[in-house]
Amino acid sequence: MSPQSGYAFEDLALGMSASFVKTIEERDVQLFAEISGDTNPIHLDEEFAARSPFGGRIAHGMLTAGLISTVIGTLLPGPGAIYLGQNLRFKAPVRLGDTVEAEVTVSELDAKRKRASMAAVCRVDDTVVLDGDALIMVPSKE
Amino acid sequence: MSPQSGYAFEDLALGMSASFVKTIEERDVQLFAEISGDTNPIHLDEEFAARSPFGGRIAHGMLTAGLISTVIGTLLPGPGAIYLGQNLRFKAPVRLGDTVEAEVTVSELDAKRKRASMAAVCRVDDTVVLDGDALIMVPSKE
Amino acid sequence: MSPQSGYAFEDLALGMSASFVKTIEERDVQLFAEISGDTNPIHLDEEFAARSPFGGRIAHGMLTAGLISTVIGTLLPGPGAIYLGQNLRFKAPVRLGDTVEAEVTVSELDAKRKRASMAAVCRVDDTVVLDGDALIMVPSKE
Amino acid sequence: MSPQSGYAFEDLALGMSASFVKTIEERDVQLFAEISGDTNPIHLDEEFAARSPFGGRIAHGMLTAGLISTVIGTLLPGPGAIYLGQNLRFKAPVRLGDTVEAEVTVSELDAKRKRASMAAVCRVDDTVVLDGDALIMVPSKE
Repeated sequence: MSPQSGYAFEDLALGMSASFVKTIEERDVQLFAEISGDTNPIHLDEEFAARSPFGGRIAHGMLTAGLISTVIGTLLPGPGAIYLGQNLRFKAPVRLGDTVEAEVTVSELDAKRKRASMAAVCRVDDTVVLDGDALIMVPSKE
Repeated sequence: MSPQSGYAFEDLALGMSASFVKTIEERDVQLFAEISGDTNPIHLDEEFAARSPFGGRIAHGMLTAGLISTVIGTLLPGPGAIYLGQNLRFKAPVRLGDTVEAEVTVSELDAKRKRASMAAVCRVDDTVVLDGDALIMVPSKE
Repeated sequence: MSPQSGYAFEDLALGMSASFVKTIEERDVQLFAEISGDTNPIHLDEEFAARSPFGGRIAHGMLTAGLISTVIGTLLPGPGAIYLGQNLRFKAPVRLGDTVEAEVTVSELDAKRKRASMAAVCRVDDTVVLDGDALIMVPSKE
Repeated sequence: MSPQSGYAFEDLALGMSASFVKTIEERDVQLFAEISGDTNPIHLDEEFAARSPFGGRIAHGMLTAGLISTVIGTLLPGPGAIYLGQNLRFKAPVRLGDTVEAEVTVSELDAKRKRASMAAVCRVDDTVVLDGDALIMVPSKE
């Protein structure tokens, strides 16, 4: 195993979960636009967004998805795990000022390939705004 | 339709594509860590990363995925489209300093529901680093 | 001196003390993780923490230390004082739900340089969880 | 060692370093005031702060110090390390909007007691705003 490491595959169990909470602010959206280049006016232009079906500006979906990777990369399984895949269903908009909780739960363990499936869900209050499954390769003690 | 708008559903055709190119720099990775909270040392700690299977620091996968949303949100179909889903397969690491080309191609059109499937692929030189499919609801002229 | 001000240097005496009490809740730890970026699982991941030497989640040490700065910045000496230094010894864990009392006592007065040393101690019930000394520059009436 | 872990003592070497960068914004200062109770007007009251020696609002010192604990708790040594002590010298104010880089370097290794001393420094551009030493107990492979 590498010198700093998250959970080993053998230490994971079905149902283990971890979460991270963040409020998405103006500055987060501005910086995400800058580093990704995604200047879609639904995120940056209040006039445009007010006339859209959302009625106001929304955060980039990949910024919300980034909170899932925070849980996976720092908490469960944490450093050393390799992110193989992620599917994302954007279910409701995240508005500026919304507080998002990203929760990740171990849902499947493939002992032969040392892969874990993790169910990820992001909520604002009781509304699911994003869900999907992550596929992770987890370092083994073997 | 709103004054600032991307393609209408009726103007899309199978095979249409668009792309965006960005070089991922140190600052992009630092800012992504800051706004997401993802401080996984594989992204930030050269010592750790040097001893990992990647042999050096890599960019956050969701930062690379953000380039796909840049194409979809600003170019094809562009503003007005609604991002319903995305799946992502992380196939190879993106290192600091790598130039990533994100390319999106219309692969399926569902005229009844006004939905487009878009095949997305991100490359560094000739290596595919990320691919997947986006599902988009596109405004109609009807 | 400014209209809103704490003690002047000349009004301090050895042995003067003040304290502040706060119960550290789940939300405090979540917000500290968010604003600092410190997602160490000992603070956020119950599974991880249960198997650590602490046997459960603990608050960030700098969150507890923040209670010392609350006393210094709002009570003794209060507004107008300038925080020059602080040393901290983390002596026992603060768990979620613990009520912490931070107490600060004037321990040394350097009249020439208008500096006060303050002994700081944080307790949960009778257990010292954090102690250390603060060095403060205090406005003078001169 | 615990299932998720940072560097083991044996994997540390003198001179290893890691860093984290964050821009301190209005909201960070508001939330730190809320969770710590430190409502000193130098942080929250523009009128008061404008008349102070700093000429404007400054961030809480313990918020800046929190960035050091982010590096220690998530990067170097990372999860599993136990924070024993930290001294802090506040050398220059951090203003709202300032971008702080917190850098931590292994400066001493005590193999008998499995303790690492880490030199910590926080900079805004080229100005050192905070420095000090951390004392950490690091899990051993033995």
